[in-house]
Amino acid sequence: MKTSEIKRYFPILDWSRDYNKDTLFSDLLAALIVTIMLIPQSLAYALLAGLPAEVGLYASMLPLVAYAIFGTSRTLSVGPVAVVSLMTASAIGHIASIGSVNYLEAALLLAFLSGVFLLGMGLLRMGFLANFLSHPVISGFITASGIIIAFSQLKHILGIHAEGENLFHLLQSLFNNLSHINLATVAVGLPALVFLFWVRNGLKPILMNMGLGDKSASMLAKTGPVLAIVATSFAAYSFDLGDKSVALVGHVPNGLPSFHLPVLGHEAWRELMMSAIFISIIGFVESVSVGHTLAAKRRQRIVPNQELIGLGAANIAASVSGGYPVTGGFARSVVNFDAGAVTPAAGFFTAIGIALAALFFTPYLAYLPKATLAATIIVAVLTLIDFSILKKTWGYARSDFVAVLTTLVVTLALGVETGVACGVLASLALHLYKTSVPHMAIVGEVPGTEHYRNINRHTVITHDEILSLRIDESLYFANAGFIEDKIYELLERRPDVQHIILMCTAVNEIDLSALEALESINHRLQDSGITLHLSEVKGPVMDVLNKTDFITHLSGNIFLSHHLGINRILEQYAEKSQSSNDWNI
Amino acid sequence: MKTSEIKRYFPILDWSRDYNKDTLFSDLLAALIVTIMLIPQSLAYALLAGLPAEVGLYASMLPLVAYAIFGTSRTLSVGPVAVVSLMTASAIGHIASIGSVNYLEAALLLAFLSGVFLLGMGLLRMGFLANFLSHPVISGFITASGIIIAFSQLKHILGIHAEGENLFHLLQSLFNNLSHINLATVAVGLPALVFLFWVRNGLKPILMNMGLGDKSASMLAKTGPVLAIVATSFAAYSFDLGDKSVALVGHVPNGLPSFHLPVLGHEAWRELMMSAIFISIIGFVESVSVGHTLAAKRRQRIVPNQELIGLGAANIAASVSGGYPVTGGFARSVVNFDAGAVTPAAGFFTAIGIALAALFFTPYLAYLPKATLAATIIVAVLTLIDFSILKKTWGYARSDFVAVLTTLVVTLALGVETGVACGVLASLALHLYKTSVPHMAIVGEVPGTEHYRNINRHTVITHDEILSLRIDESLYFANAGFIEDKIYELLERRPDVQHIILMCTAVNEIDLSALEALESINHRLQDSGITLHLSEVKGPVMDVLNKTDFITHLSGNIFLSHHLGINRILEQYAEKSQSSNDWNI
Repeated sequence: MKTSEIKRYFPILDWSRDYNKDTLFSDLLAALIVTIMLIPQSLAYALLAGLPAEVGLYASMLPLVAYAIFGTSRTLSVGPVAVVSLMTASAIGHIASIGSVNYLEAALLLAFLSGVFLLGMGLLRMGFLANFLSHPVISGFITASGIIIAFSQLKHILGIHAEGENLFHLLQSLFNNLSHINLATVAVGLPALVFLFWVRNGLKPILMNMGLGDKSASMLAKTGPVLAIVATSFAAYSFDLGDKSVALVGHVPNGLPSFHLPVLGHEAWRELMMSAIFISIIGFVESVSVGHTLAAKRRQRIVPNQELIGLGAANIAASVSGGYPVTGGFARSVVNFDAGAVTPAAGFFTAIGIALAALFFTPYLAYLPKATLAATIIVAVLTLIDFSILKKTWGYARSDFVAVLTTLVVTLALGVETGVACGVLASLALHLYKTSVPHMAIVGEVPGTEHYRNINRHTVITHDEILSLRIDESLYFANAGFIEDKIYELLERRPDVQHIILMCTAVNEIDLSALEALESINHRLQDSGITLHLSEVKGPVMDVLNKTDFITHLSGNIFLSHHLGINRILEQYAEKSQSSNDWNI
Repeated sequence: MKTSEIKRYFPILDWSRDYNKDTLFSDLLAALIVTIMLIPQSLAYALLAGLPAEVGLYASMLPLVAYAIFGTSRTLSVGPVAVVSLMTASAIGHIASIGSVNYLEAALLLAFLSGVFLLGMGLLRMGFLANFLSHPVISGFITASGIIIAFSQLKHILGIHAEGENLFHLLQSLFNNLSHINLATVAVGLPALVFLFWVRNGLKPILMNMGLGDKSASMLAKTGPVLAIVATSFAAYSFDLGDKSVALVGHVPNGLPSFHLPVLGHEAWRELMMSAIFISIIGFVESVSVGHTLAAKRRQRIVPNQELIGLGAANIAASVSGGYPVTGGFARSVVNFDAGAVTPAAGFFTAIGIALAALFFTPYLAYLPKATLAATIIVAVLTLIDFSILKKTWGYARSDFVAVLTTLVVTLALGVETGVACGVLASLALHLYKTSVPHMAIVGEVPGTEHYRNINRHTVITHDEILSLRIDESLYFANAGFIEDKIYELLERRPDVQHIILMCTAVNEIDLSALEALESINHRLQDSGITLHLSEVKGPVMDVLNKTDFITHLSGNIFLSHHLGINRILEQYAEKSQSSNDWNI
């Protein structure tokens, strides 16, 4: 392997060279703030995934170190995130019941499979596949996930049981159990929820009034969840809320995770494989989009295929150290960025911070009410819910709107995996449908130029005996028949036409099915005494046509430019009428 | 409903008006020849589908009448065909065992579901969906089906048992049972096979030597299978071959089918639904392609959506009259056409011919060896097998080749339904992949014109400060990221560039994901002091862009033609240097 290749696979070699005291200080400060934010988040998202609280902490140590070595984003904060936690719960829920050892092992296995899949995609340079998740599909999916997550956490605030993978079942279950509402739990959860809502926007101005700078106030406001945790834990301890049926986190093992490979059998592998792929792709797309956004702000670049390797390494690290699937989180990465993180070393220091927390703070978590964690989740995911994409796409293009709506509705109605799969299929189907019924324009010369445009939109010069037709799509199997029919239809309405020139500016490909359609058009027009020409055929298309007999069969010519073609045909007419004049003389 | 609409749904009203003695005579003659051809075919294809021989006859009566009323092809011969018979056997084989009543009822139900699906597609005008079956996929599928059918009939020629839905299992089963070969059966089957092979090309010249005209000789040569049937039936009767373990057709009930609706329960519906859809689509595509070819020869047209209705009606007719799925057959339709059929009434008369056969000839079928029918099938399907498509697509485009090969191999290895599904998915995936990594060309002015072409293929005029980039694809979610990366890459190699013009001749759509990519390109270039322009944006794309803020954000202009754009930018430079000159003075 060459040095450049080694560097490509180990971005740490790139940024660690210039590491100095200044960057160390910046990274340390950012790590401190992110650690304070990540402790409640990691506990809460583990709860959302149906896992013991400590699993969230474990997923916030080694994965960060792995990403710091292999990742290309300087400021991405890898770890547990809401959407992937929901998908984890949904995936494992199928094969194991919550709380059992199997459930935990399944989470490890899921992270492992996810990591291997991401790593494989990265090494095979298949990052481009993520492009097939369109922006509307991602938006619809994230909003729907946010709604499901928020409602799934309501049970913890109300102190009732409720299950359901899709929104309908969830609401039904919540409603059915509403009579068992636990008032002591509500007494903890509701204030925590209100406080966290308020803290999002209300704390910062107060801190600024107290003389803090804009940035410090912002950062300090992020400690809201920690305040809520301390306050409600203290309340739970003081008022013995555990005895009043308020669900507490309970005993959290002290110390660092033990290392072992996931142990479930082949069947579990098979059953979790599809879910691992879904989680990987969603996690990757979310992470890359955050990474791109932050990198652009500092004129840095991230390399999607290396990001796959970084996230793959992070997930494998999670799986061997008692964690569960992780990816780059939006809110946390923004905080990391704003707090001044300069290199991935900030992630490394964050991992140390979490490790210290796991070593020394876990005893204090025993009295932490689950309602508080649920409140932090609800407040966090509300930022994910954004219906404005519906309005935006409605105004822009119906196909984008349908893609959003399909993803949104199916995710809510049938769950996360079905939702994202249907969204991708819907957006691909819409795209294919559009290309199967392409736009075509009869074009004419824009006066004073050699440019040809749609006769319905521009004032242009046309000729009765020549039909200039621009086909606005590559010719391939799905539209070959449609185009053939359209040409015949047009010619029926234009009996004077003796020449038809297909302007191929938008024809980027002619596949075999389309070539056969062209052959058939050519023969049929020839029988009717109409000459078929092509113009502005692109190089790559011409290369392919040159391999066939089509050009020798073609009744007319292939012109370099449409303008040349029109002129050549008109010249022929002039010559003909000239020679017939000669004859008359 | 208006008269024109009624006529659209009942094409019979169109052609029956002009019906006269001449057309009657032509149709009657064609019907006679097709009937003689159809009797052995219908018996043989029923055998192929695993059904009693009479089911083939029943499928050749009412369906032909239904198609004569609703179909738009004047000469299509509807009835049992090889590929659909194979698909029927494969579909029903999953849910019932051959020979049981359930098997027969399942065939009726399959025809019914198929008919309803076709009818529904026709009424909803969804015929365009069939376009997604590309020519390479159909070719690969038909060839693979022909191979499977030919090998599946070998057991009848050899007098052994063999089962297997895919080629591998079939060959294995044939090989394992080879020791049980029945020599008496081979003594019938092999001569029949050799005779039918010979008759395909050998009989016609002899008949012509005997003084018959080209056409009459052709027609008479089609009676080969009937001769084989008569001869082998006579042999079976004379030598008591039934006692020598030669499989005979046996008792065939005399008379017309009884009418009843298919009776299987809901579970059978569910299980057969997917197969019915596959059979419908394959049958429709095959039928329409035959119909198109024949109609074109007489300057007639067929209407795909009405064809769906015609074939739907034919299949429903088959299901209520004891038949099984039918469609338009290639060989038979060509014979019908060549024999001079003028209207679908020929199909109607053929139905009467088959009904007469069912009423009076069935007793004679008792001694007909199944080996003879197998021989007619083998000889018929060998015309389907055509490997030249592999060579043709290899030379034309690798993506077409991959589509053929995938369909061919998967059909042989995993069966007909999986084969066609994988073929369609492969061809769509290849198309999507190609559009996700579009071709882009840096273009320059072709001297003496206003035309811009690829700098690598043409001698063109370029300017250092302007990058003219033609993007050869619509901008959509699958390629937005790729295009963005490519543009940055190009600009890194061209540090002098101050203006970039994206030439949008091939951009037929800009979806929301692509619009966001354009916004991001625009901002990033603006930061680097590069102005982004677009040129030759098409009407429909411009309509969409006009709904957004993009145009106000765009740092440069949108030019009607690329040439205008280049000139405008150069003028600005000229003015600037002019004014800086003024300043210097």
